[in-house]
Amino acid sequence: MEKKKVVTIGGGTGSYNLLRGLKKYTDKIEISAIVTMMDSGGSSGILRDEYGVLPPGDIRRCLIALSDETEILKKLFNYRFHSKKGNSLSGHNFGNLFLTALEKILNSEQKAIKFASKILKVRGKVLPVTFQSTHLYARLEDGTLIKGESVIDLPRSTSNLRIKRLYLKPPAEANPEVLIAIKQAQVIIIGPGDLFTSIIPNLVVNGVSKAIRKSKALKIYNCNIMTKYGETNDFSVYDHLATIEEYIGCPCIDVLTYNSKKLRSKILKRYQREKAKPVKFIQNEFKSRNIEIIGRNLVTEPNVARHDPEKIGKLIMKIISKRLS
Amino acid sequence: MEKKKVVTIGGGTGSYNLLRGLKKYTDKIEISAIVTMMDSGGSSGILRDEYGVLPPGDIRRCLIALSDETEILKKLFNYRFHSKKGNSLSGHNFGNLFLTALEKILNSEQKAIKFASKILKVRGKVLPVTFQSTHLYARLEDGTLIKGESVIDLPRSTSNLRIKRLYLKPPAEANPEVLIAIKQAQVIIIGPGDLFTSIIPNLVVNGVSKAIRKSKALKIYNCNIMTKYGETNDFSVYDHLATIEEYIGCPCIDVLTYNSKKLRSKILKRYQREKAKPVKFIQNEFKSRNIEIIGRNLVTEPNVARHDPEKIGKLIMKIISKRLS
Repeated sequence: MEKKKVVTIGGGTGSYNLLRGLKKYTDKIEISAIVTMMDSGGSSGILRDEYGVLPPGDIRRCLIALSDETEILKKLFNYRFHSKKGNSLSGHNFGNLFLTALEKILNSEQKAIKFASKILKVRGKVLPVTFQSTHLYARLEDGTLIKGESVIDLPRSTSNLRIKRLYLKPPAEANPEVLIAIKQAQVIIIGPGDLFTSIIPNLVVNGVSKAIRKSKALKIYNCNIMTKYGETNDFSVYDHLATIEEYIGCPCIDVLTYNSKKLRSKILKRYQREKAKPVKFIQNEFKSRNIEIIGRNLVTEPNVARHDPEKIGKLIMKIISKRLS
Repeated sequence: MEKKKVVTIGGGTGSYNLLRGLKKYTDKIEISAIVTMMDSGGSSGILRDEYGVLPPGDIRRCLIALSDETEILKKLFNYRFHSKKGNSLSGHNFGNLFLTALEKILNSEQKAIKFASKILKVRGKVLPVTFQSTHLYARLEDGTLIKGESVIDLPRSTSNLRIKRLYLKPPAEANPEVLIAIKQAQVIIIGPGDLFTSIIPNLVVNGVSKAIRKSKALKIYNCNIMTKYGETNDFSVYDHLATIEEYIGCPCIDVLTYNSKKLRSKILKRYQREKAKPVKFIQNEFKSRNIEIIGRNLVTEPNVARHDPEKIGKLIMKIISKRLS
């Protein structure tokens, strides 16, 4: 049987866990991971500023998730320099430095990713959503404008306000390979991932939402387990879905997955400090909507509030084999 | 025919050029490159200070010289971070960061070098002369004591004085693999390289000189092309040889090579600024000494004052096949 072409859209640890789960099935699926490129904080932000490269952090995470290399090489790519004595490497991540140096030598982000993919024996493709340098802007409900992924991502004085509109400045054109991958895809998987800093940043790149709208692929959305303060305060599963579909421009998600396993109070308390709560599933909100909804235990045992690679990978493969055979 | 076991002793660019030249003959020889570990300046010095690793610079150069990998990977290992905007990576070399991160992850310098050798497809072994952290000290003819490889290496107010004695503090034991390599060697090649900062630092590690003295291997010394101000002011070829044999503890070098090609005045002028002069060969100094002396054009065309990998490699192989068959 021919392999199914699967596109994932995201960035951050959500994508990392999903891709780790899907990697096991590369005998049945061909993965193209579309990755956000608007990171402006931490090691990525510094490299972007000082070396004029695209922020490498999200790319690195996806490469490692899909890597077939030894644990040592993967550990190396995730290694973060930190010395008590000095700050000459100030929290830089080895994999980020690897991608930065490669991009400088090859004078091409695309070639750098392809070379790194070879070294790391990556199963699948990792595609930056755009090669243009651009920044995220968020307009809040009171009119305030917030600039930069890292600012939107972190707690701020305006964290209690909703994000009305997310956009890029300057506008960015999609990486042509991304549009081709979406066009050829039989399955498009969105999320999990921070709604306004990992998922939607992909959808606001010129051409991406249109390509998804036009696609006949099976579209799956994996909803987040927890809300994120300053991005999705009190969002329900439906709110997540509706926001994504608003940016795509059509109610075209076919399958929705969410975590139905109750989290331990000890874990919830830890999240309370960050004002994050479990994302509630409210059946009523979905009436009159034609969508397959799958609630499952998707968390990593013993009961951690993140997607378990094995569980989400297995569920996705089940959905694909049921719907596409 | 069985491969000849060849040991090289050095560090720095001299070793780099020699090893590049010898790499082509790995069908006939098995190379173990013994490398000095006392570097205290630049990127290596900072990593040594801040991360407590052994200075990676000389190791990196030897790994690249013997690497069978693509040009891209070699370029990457030699890539030096430099940004006009910031200094968060302050001249660090990618290969050094690679070795540092690996050493931290594997908790072993030895394992880090072996892993890096695999990645870089290194033909041969690269062996740090010691795994102990130690510093070079130089006692000058007027009694002044100089501490640190990088201080001895660079111009200083006392550069006009001769180095009377070079030693390590604390004393360091040889890497056991180094002693085994010397014991099993059929050929030992010393130099080219800075006398007091690349060659002798190996000889003052406990066990190394004794192992050389006891060895029945063919011993070749490749003399430097230029003197180095502050290390070998006005040294002749014989002075170089005599100094090395003084540290080894016997007049046991069998073959001596030196460059007999006159350098262009334009090049000599450039070196004059650093008070470096061509190393003179004075036949008289060798009377009553039983040694094969080979003067050849060994410089890189068009007339650069450093050993040409191809020429020195070819000459060494000629010597080996003449003396060991």
